[in-house]
Amino acid sequence: MEERDADYCPHFHRAIELIGRRWTGAILQSMLGGQTRFSDIRDSVPGLSDRMLAERLKELDEIGVVNRCTETRDVNYYLTDVGRQIQPVMDSVAVWAEQLAGQAPPLPST
Amino acid sequence: MEERDADYCPHFHRAIELIGRRWTGAILQSMLGGQTRFSDIRDSVPGLSDRMLAERLKELDEIGVVNRCTETRDVNYYLTDVGRQIQPVMDSVAVWAEQLAGQAPPLPST
Repeated sequence: MEERDADYCPHFHRAIELIGRRWTGAILQSMLGGQTRFSDIRDSVPGLSDRMLAERLKELDEIGVVNRCTETRDVNYYLTDVGRQIQPVMDSVAVWAEQLAGQAPPLPST
Repeated sequence: MEERDADYCPHFHRAIELIGRRWTGAILQSMLGGQTRFSDIRDSVPGLSDRMLAERLKELDEIGVVNRCTETRDVNYYLTDVGRQIQPVMDSVAVWAEQLAGQAPPLPST
């Protein structure tokens, strides 16, 4: 594909769409909060199904954000180094989420 | 829906999935870079079609992140106050995108 703009960064594009994929942000938030067990992560995100959680954890594992560890009978999921490095992103999104929620209703378009 | 976890924040969930919607991050990045004309925004994001850009701008307008302004013959799009407040989110995603791209390939799962 032709590169039409030097400012456009495929890494940025990939990262932001990964983070915003349905449920992924909430799953990462839960894991940053310390959850490691499948059932605990699932229970911390209202509406998240087993199937969707398994799919998202598999994706995050494949790109190196999450490690899947089998310990005795349990399966646990841990954030990798680069997974933990996402904390500032989550913090800035949380701030902006409140700004977005707190703004006055938008004026009609002209 | 039952609230199962006090840490779960619907505002956060809404914001992060908005930001990560396909093309939205790149569009916001382009507008933060100063683009206001439809064709200029489109041309700054490789692969973005007129139809998708129009759809995303409409969504962003409806939630108050973007204002659509008709000026003489041109239509321009401007970030609102809360739209511009997304800059720190974009900055932190850009940092993490490079960390993600630069990491060693993930080890196979255990």
